[in-house]
This record gives sequence, C-alpha cells and structure tokens, in this order.
Amino acid sequence: MSRFYSYRNANLVPYTPGEQPKVLNVTKLNTNECPFPPSEKAWAFAREHIRPLNLYPEIQCIDVRRAIAELHDIEPDNIILGNGSDELLNFAFMTFCDDRRAVAYPNISYGFYPVYADLNHVPALEIPLREDFSIAPEDYFDLGRNIFIANPNAPTGMALSPDQVEEILTHNRDHVVVIDEAYVDFGGQTCIPLIKKYDNLLVIQTFSKSRSLAGGRLGFAAGDKALIADLNIIKYSTNPYNINSMTLAIGLGVLLDEETRIANCRTIMENRAYTAAELEKLGFTVLPSCANFIFAKTGAIDGKALYAKLKERGVLIRHFDKPEIWAWNRITIGTREQMDILLTNIREILEETP
Amino acid sequence: MSRFYSYRNANLVPYTPGEQPKVLNVTKLNTNECPFPPSEKAWAFAREHIRPLNLYPEIQCIDVRRAIAELHDIEPDNIILGNGSDELLNFAFMTFCDDRRAVAYPNISYGFYPVYADLNHVPALEIPLREDFSIAPEDYFDLGRNIFIANPNAPTGMALSPDQVEEILTHNRDHVVVIDEAYVDFGGQTCIPLIKKYDNLLVIQTFSKSRSLAGGRLGFAAGDKALIADLNIIKYSTNPYNINSMTLAIGLGVLLDEETRIANCRTIMENRAYTAAELEKLGFTVLPSCANFIFAKTGAIDGKALYAKLKERGVLIRHFDKPEIWAWNRITIGTREQMDILLTNIREILEETP
Repeated sequence: MSRFYSYRNANLVPYTPGEQPKVLNVTKLNTNECPFPPSEKAWAFAREHIRPLNLYPEIQCIDVRRAIAELHDIEPDNIILGNGSDELLNFAFMTFCDDRRAVAYPNISYGFYPVYADLNHVPALEIPLREDFSIAPEDYFDLGRNIFIANPNAPTGMALSPDQVEEILTHNRDHVVVIDEAYVDFGGQTCIPLIKKYDNLLVIQTFSKSRSLAGGRLGFAAGDKALIADLNIIKYSTNPYNINSMTLAIGLGVLLDEETRIANCRTIMENRAYTAAELEKLGFTVLPSCANFIFAKTGAIDGKALYAKLKERGVLIRHFDKPEIWAWNRITIGTREQMDILLTNIREILEETP
Repeated sequence: MSRFYSYRNANLVPYTPGEQPKVLNVTKLNTNECPFPPSEKAWAFAREHIRPLNLYPEIQCIDVRRAIAELHDIEPDNIILGNGSDELLNFAFMTFCDDRRAVAYPNISYGFYPVYADLNHVPALEIPLREDFSIAPEDYFDLGRNIFIANPNAPTGMALSPDQVEEILTHNRDHVVVIDEAYVDFGGQTCIPLIKKYDNLLVIQTFSKSRSLAGGRLGFAAGDKALIADLNIIKYSTNPYNINSMTLAIGLGVLLDEETRIANCRTIMENRAYTAAELEKLGFTVLPSCANFIFAKTGAIDGKALYAKLKERGVLIRHFDKPEIWAWNRITIGTREQMDILLTNIREILEETP
C-alpha cells in the first residue's frame, strides 16, 4: 500500500476470482461459465439494434428492463441492471447496510459477501451451514440484520424452495433479504414472484451463466419499486452509465432467445447428472446440485491435490482454501466432451494415487 | 426512500447526467460526445479479437493496458482501466480520500466530484475559479488535501499547462493530485509524462470523447505503480470483471487506430474555431477552449432561455443550474453540419428575441 492509501480500507482483503488463463486450450471448469456462446440469433439482433458507440448508452436501459419484466410478469420499475450481478450486490450493501444495519450470510457461500461487508464497513455474521451443507431457514429468523443468501448456494449447489425463502422473509419484515439467484436456471425455482408480496425482498440474477454472457457483464435485481428506487440513488451517484451499449444490445438479444437458454440449461442438467453418476461410480460423494456445477469429494485424494493434478493436465476446477471444505472441489458442468476429459483425467489420477 | 435505505446516504444527491433522448433525430450537442463513430478498422479488429462472450473477460486487461503504455512510454503496471472514467474517479475517492484526507476541487468543474465526495463521506473544499474562469495554481498550494482538477476544465474548456500542474504537484507532495484529462486531446497537453517524476500524480483519461467510445464505457488512470496497486485493491473488492470483453476488443481497436483519432480531433478543433468565430459575430462571449465544447454567453438572451428555445427546435445543448454560470451554455462541438444547424437556430432565436 502506498502512503496515500486510506486508513479506512487498510485491512480490506480483495476477492480472489477463479483463474482466467489467457490461453483457451484448457478444459475450463473453474468459474461456472456456460460452455455455449450466445446464439447467432442473439448476435444478429445485437448487431441490428446497437446504438452508435460514439453516443452515451441509453441510461435507463429501458428495453432490457422491459424484456425482463415481461418474462417475469413484473414492471420495468421493479428492475435495475448492473455491470454484472457483482455490482448489484455491492450496490445492495451500499444502499441498505451500514454499521447499524448489519448483515448475515452463510459461512460457506459466495466469497464476495465478506469482501463487500468489509468494503462497506458493515458488521457481518456468518451462519454455519448444517452438517449436510444445507441452509436451514430457521437459522435466519429474526436476526435483526439484512440477509444475503445465494440460492442455489455456491459452492454447494443446494437450493432452498420459494416456500423456505418465504419463511425467512416473514421472519425479517424490517430487513432486506437478498436472494442471489445466479444459478437458479439450472434446477432451482426463482423467488421473483415473491417481490409482489414482500417489500423486503431483493432478487439478483446474472446473465453470466444460463445466458452465456459472462464476458458481457450484465446482471439485474428485481424488487419492490421503492427498493429499486433506492438502488438507483446509489447507481446515479456511482456510475450512471454503468451498462455499455454493446452489452445492452447483446443482453436484449439473448433475452429474446429463450429457446436457446432453455435448451442449453437442459443440456447442462443432463451433463450434470451424467458427471455426478460417473463420479459416484469412482467413489466420490457429490452433493445434490441445482446449479451448473457440482461439489464433490473423494476419500482417495484430498481436494487440493486433485485440483493441482488436474491443473497439471490442463483441466481447471475450483478449490477453496477454507478448512470446512478442504476435501471438496467445485466442478463447473460444461459440454459432454469437456466432462469426459475431466472424468478420464480423474480416472487416471486415481489410478496413479497409492 | 424506502424504510430500508441506509442513514449513511440520506442526504446524497445523485449526479444529473445530460439528457439522452431515445430518438436520434435531434442535434445532440449536450454531452460532449464525438460525432464520429469508431472506424471500420477498429470494428474489424474488435470482431477478430473478441474473447468468446460465454467466458469471463480477461481480468487484467493486459492487451489494452500494454497498448496505452506504449503510446505514453510508460509500463502496463502504471495503468488501471475503468468502466468509464467515472468509475476510476470514484475508485480514487474510495482509495485515497476519507474523513482525514479531505479533498479540494474547483467550484465550477465536473459535477460528479461533489457527488463522489458525498458518497464517500469526504469533506470537500470548493475553490472558486478566478474572475476570468481560470484555475490559479497557487490557489491549490499546500492545502493539506487531495486535489481533483479537470484539465481542460469543464464546462469552461480552459486548460492548465503541465508546468502549472507541476507547481501544484510540488506544493502537495503528501497528497494525491488527480488530473482528469477527459478533454485533453482537443488542444490540451497531457500530464502523463509527469507520473515518472511525481508519485502523487494520478492522470485519468476517457475513451468517451476523442476515441468515440462513450457508448463503450472505457477509461484509464495512469500513475505511479504504488498508486495503481492501491486502486487495484479497490477494484478487486468492488467489481473485478469491471471491463467486459466487447469493450476490451473495441477499446484495443480504437487504440490501434491513432490516425482516425488524430484526424477526428483536428476536424473538431476546426469546427470549434468556426463555431466560436460565428458566435462572436453574433455578439456572444466565448471562453478560449481546449476541449470538444465551448462555453458561451450573450447579453441578448439568458442562458437557460436559449437552452430551452434550442431544445424546442430539436437542438440540445447543456445549461447548468448554478448561479455563477447562469448566463452561460456549454455547447458540444459536432460536425460542421451540426454546428450550422445550431448557428442557424441561434440566429433565428436572436431575431425573435425583443
């Protein structure tokens, strides 16, 4: 740190993103990307509808917000867009959390929540998962804090039902409950319909997974209009033109091509079932996943060692340096071909392992 | 504000961006965009080099940073990219300013500085411009504060020389001096070479003006490696994938086409001289501008009224609701055709005015 760095952030430890190799010839199963690029139909739409780049973007992002609203039978004013869902998570911390309105989230979840809590100087309570890695709704009742829950959770892949989320909402009427649905399209159920009933619910989704736009950076938050208006105060005080015109164009393109999204999700769910079954045959324990990844371990080799051996062989998966999940690895579900490369390499590694 | 909104930001007043009409059939001279789109050469490069969108962007943005470094004879580690230069201005506030490290900037300047000061709870001192609207370096000596100066300044268009900036730097060795060079390519002189000599200098530039990418959202900051490392702590704690892959591709495309940038700047400077001369013939006072806009007033009609009458006629310019500059308007320099439309309309309005 330089001598000019603010004392406020002296202890801030940034988020560690998954590795992003520059070379594209690795089997990349470490950051939960979709293996399929946006469809030609989406690109054709984008090329036709992009606003001239020398002009600032359309600041209200109304076309994309309207299309999302129609999909979910809500209104554009229930929606705000972000430069990826990360930006919206930070906006939610900035808007609703402070030293008096503290926060709670699971101890094993998206690694950015603690960073946002630190960055925004918000006291955080980490609530342990149950022994089976599940989130128990009753652990979140009447905490007197805002709550952030990834649903399905990462890196476990396990999901709460909307009924369970509703229990949490009814027991926290005076605090905001943020449901981070990055992975909901792979077998979870969205809580967006509940925003009509609960003014304390904010649902955040991303285009990075099921909509093939990790490189395009687009997320949205849905909630009561008053929550969205609050978030807009922060957006307009931070970066009003946060979504560029290319992302708006391709974002609308993929939104209007639901067929491709649904087909891709179906393929990934099939590949997930296949991969889980094959790993179980090899002696792995695999958590039940509603996401585009699985969380798996084996007694034969420890998680970090398996990660390292796969990396040597050009297969990237994700290991987290947390004691509670040291044995485990998170494996993104890609194409059938990618999963077969993974499985072949795992079989070879297990054979080599004494 | 909802009942969930943090008390911390209760008094925050967001930035008011210039109007962005959805219809494109207005003469848009209000937000200092470049009238020329990115070149076909830049687009061709972008199409060929874009990373597949289903993958996360290359997080270090090394290709674009390297190209900028080469242009300015510095190193990639002297550079950080932002989702527009606004994001970097906010990062600079977040990184270097706090309640103990307060800030100073001109009272008439980019309207976002006070918003960032409020958002980040940084005490701010607004230093009046001199009577001729110039910034006097000595007004910024030994303030015991970080300093933000737009150079050329907006909305005046007037510039400090690097020698004058150096005076400010030498008189503030223990504080960061941020020079916001959004408009530098239209007749100003960049202070980037000074980063080798002063570890307290951060220079911020944007691709929104001379590089035709307002809709692409790309800016960069150049400074001592330690300053850039500090900013990266904040970037990786806020939004590590802040630049999307499309912006990286077209950003590199426009960087590699310096000929177009230089030609466009030359055209705009010619059109600026023409417009200023014509307005002066009509009795306007026009400040000497080093930017892609001019700041002008006339005794014949007040600034707000001229703005409103032009808007009725489909010509957008920018008026600021500040008493000190009530008489004035900021007019973006566009194509010769756009400037002639403006001038024709102004002539007609003046004839109508009693």
